[in-house]
Amino acid sequence: MARINDHYLKLKAGYLFPEIGRRVGAFAAANPDAKIIRMGIGDVTEPLPPAVVEATHRAVDEMSRRETFHGYGPEQGYDFLRNAIAKNDFQARGADVATDEIFVSDGSKCDGGNILDIFGPARDDNTIALQDPVYPIYVDTNVMAGHTGEADERGEYQGLVYMRATADNNFSPEIPKQKVDIVYLCFPNNPTGAVATRQRLTQWVEYAKASDAVILFDAAYERYITDPAIPHSIYEIPGGRDVAIEFRSFSKTAGFTGVRCAFTVVPKSVTGRAKDGSRVPLHRLWTRRHTTKFNSVAYIVQRGAEAVYSDAGREQVQKLVAFYLENAKLIREGLTSIGLKAYGGVNAPYVWVKTPRDLSSWDTFDLLLKQANVVVTPGSGFGISGEGYFRVSAFNSRENVNEALRRLKGALAG
Amino acid sequence: MARINDHYLKLKAGYLFPEIGRRVGAFAAANPDAKIIRMGIGDVTEPLPPAVVEATHRAVDEMSRRETFHGYGPEQGYDFLRNAIAKNDFQARGADVATDEIFVSDGSKCDGGNILDIFGPARDDNTIALQDPVYPIYVDTNVMAGHTGEADERGEYQGLVYMRATADNNFSPEIPKQKVDIVYLCFPNNPTGAVATRQRLTQWVEYAKASDAVILFDAAYERYITDPAIPHSIYEIPGGRDVAIEFRSFSKTAGFTGVRCAFTVVPKSVTGRAKDGSRVPLHRLWTRRHTTKFNSVAYIVQRGAEAVYSDAGREQVQKLVAFYLENAKLIREGLTSIGLKAYGGVNAPYVWVKTPRDLSSWDTFDLLLKQANVVVTPGSGFGISGEGYFRVSAFNSRENVNEALRRLKGALAG
Repeated sequence: MARINDHYLKLKAGYLFPEIGRRVGAFAAANPDAKIIRMGIGDVTEPLPPAVVEATHRAVDEMSRRETFHGYGPEQGYDFLRNAIAKNDFQARGADVATDEIFVSDGSKCDGGNILDIFGPARDDNTIALQDPVYPIYVDTNVMAGHTGEADERGEYQGLVYMRATADNNFSPEIPKQKVDIVYLCFPNNPTGAVATRQRLTQWVEYAKASDAVILFDAAYERYITDPAIPHSIYEIPGGRDVAIEFRSFSKTAGFTGVRCAFTVVPKSVTGRAKDGSRVPLHRLWTRRHTTKFNSVAYIVQRGAEAVYSDAGREQVQKLVAFYLENAKLIREGLTSIGLKAYGGVNAPYVWVKTPRDLSSWDTFDLLLKQANVVVTPGSGFGISGEGYFRVSAFNSRENVNEALRRLKGALAG
Repeated sequence: MARINDHYLKLKAGYLFPEIGRRVGAFAAANPDAKIIRMGIGDVTEPLPPAVVEATHRAVDEMSRRETFHGYGPEQGYDFLRNAIAKNDFQARGADVATDEIFVSDGSKCDGGNILDIFGPARDDNTIALQDPVYPIYVDTNVMAGHTGEADERGEYQGLVYMRATADNNFSPEIPKQKVDIVYLCFPNNPTGAVATRQRLTQWVEYAKASDAVILFDAAYERYITDPAIPHSIYEIPGGRDVAIEFRSFSKTAGFTGVRCAFTVVPKSVTGRAKDGSRVPLHRLWTRRHTTKFNSVAYIVQRGAEAVYSDAGREQVQKLVAFYLENAKLIREGLTSIGLKAYGGVNAPYVWVKTPRDLSSWDTFDLLLKQANVVVTPGSGFGISGEGYFRVSAFNSRENVNEALRRLKGALAG
């Protein structure tokens, strides 16, 4: 009799975005003429940069001829891409990251879930801390891995340490007083758009060193940082490479949400403890995981990703990011102008907005869908500290942003 | 203090193919003039079919324009591809599989490892049976998931039920006498090239029903079946959709080893048991796993895979498969002609060969590398019943096959 993984049954309702999809779908079915503008899920809207398109076409042509065909590639990714990443994203910023510490993958969502494979599976092996509000995947994958107890009536899981991010701490949570073993950090933050200063990141690295903890650092939005004082990588902090794994993605930079290419950095100096107390490099474990349960990303996609680092590609990506940041500015200023309190959107593509008249997040979601035919993301979907907020994504056309703002102003002025 | 997954430390040495890579690399470094022919790893050598190339180019162009750009797709894959799969690969053969039972993925290796996420994580939750010799991934991923004890001196892990495939049973193992909960079956088999008759598959389905077991059916090589009496899918067997999950891939049919597209079928009627004894559809659990820890495959790749089912694509794939099967025939006949005992290679792209003079598998590997500069796969890398055999892959150019056979004849005649 095959036994299932009972931990899955602890998961509450659907994952946030499917639930949004269900509500929008029902509304659209009932109102077929409504011109819905989706500013919920953070999906890019602009086409791939021309340099990426050209490189991908070239790679497809290579695959069409026997002499230049590529079969299985190295599981960790081709060196042409890993070298470009190590050099441009890290070494150029003074961060000490080597090519063989880069693991190319098909997405940060996948990496963020799969990374748990290499940590102790028993519930009491590790105490896990995460920001609240948080990208729901971090919570759900820990539940599925059996690292938590049941959910309480507010939807929080026993055993997880929730670090509250509120307006009072600028959405950058305090360092926990207790010792934890694994800490999830995401800066620039999804959903709040908050950033961590160099000083705060330094405190995190020192805390991790003192606790012998590992930081799982999600830097998917680093390209949106406009303030030159803000670090882009945890490895810019002294000691960072002894305690942190960093996740990066091409999704929100080069528009790869439908192309699927990302990477994870596992420095050889980050270790965990085995049962017998010995230190084991996580690089060794992740290499085993990656080579045994993954087979890398399409050659044509890796060639496309490589083009992001060419002169033309770099300039085109910079333009894309600037375009979305201008959207974020318009959203932030537009909502502020009608009396809403808006955060983020300066070093991040997300604007985090206090709900009007103390409405709940989902009530605001329903109101804006109904009154303005605009889809936002209810803040409570990211955790209880997100209640009373909603997230607006800057990933859209300028036309849609302006039209959505016009409608939101109309709906909320009333 | 972050605790690691200690189960990883139980894993023996490297995964088979990296070990082959190391030995070949050392030989090549010491013998820079040797013209090595690789018939070890089962990697395709012929370019992508023209229909796939054209469809991929078109999709890249779509991604270059705002109006036809695709961001995040459905996690389970686009319906255009899932429909084509359900219709052509299953319904056309009388197998009852619906579109929403198809989960598009980036590889069977990934799916075969990840599927364990949805089964009980504790070692005594499930008794797991697998063929020996076997694709090493199945063993290793169970070790990593904590489903086994330590390895014994022969490299076999406590707790796994090894089903021996030998010349005496035509490499199609007997149904176990004991009850097990999860059974891995791979037909046409990697590495032996053996197939399962309809009668034998029916026995497996009946056994799984009686034991309330789940069959994990690897059909990555089904396209190589030449005997019309042999089923291509476990779902051609009555009751198959109540007990089996099936893995399929475009790797060995359309030459996608470097493109990465595969799929897994999880019928809604396959269930496992929760702790409280209730039955839970595995489709529900795999949907949760797939949507939470995966984000589908590149749009351009899915369009390429769809083209495999066009009239032109179908014909081109059939030609590719016929080409590799002709290689397999040449290998089988060539090695038989010099007195070796060769199996497989008729309904599969692998030929499974008894070592000469009772040499061990690795001694034969070293001998053939040294004397013929030909790389084969040592049978013992697939399990202890593979000792005394080696696997020759038919994935190569005709020229290389003929040259390798010439050299092998020379090396083994002596």
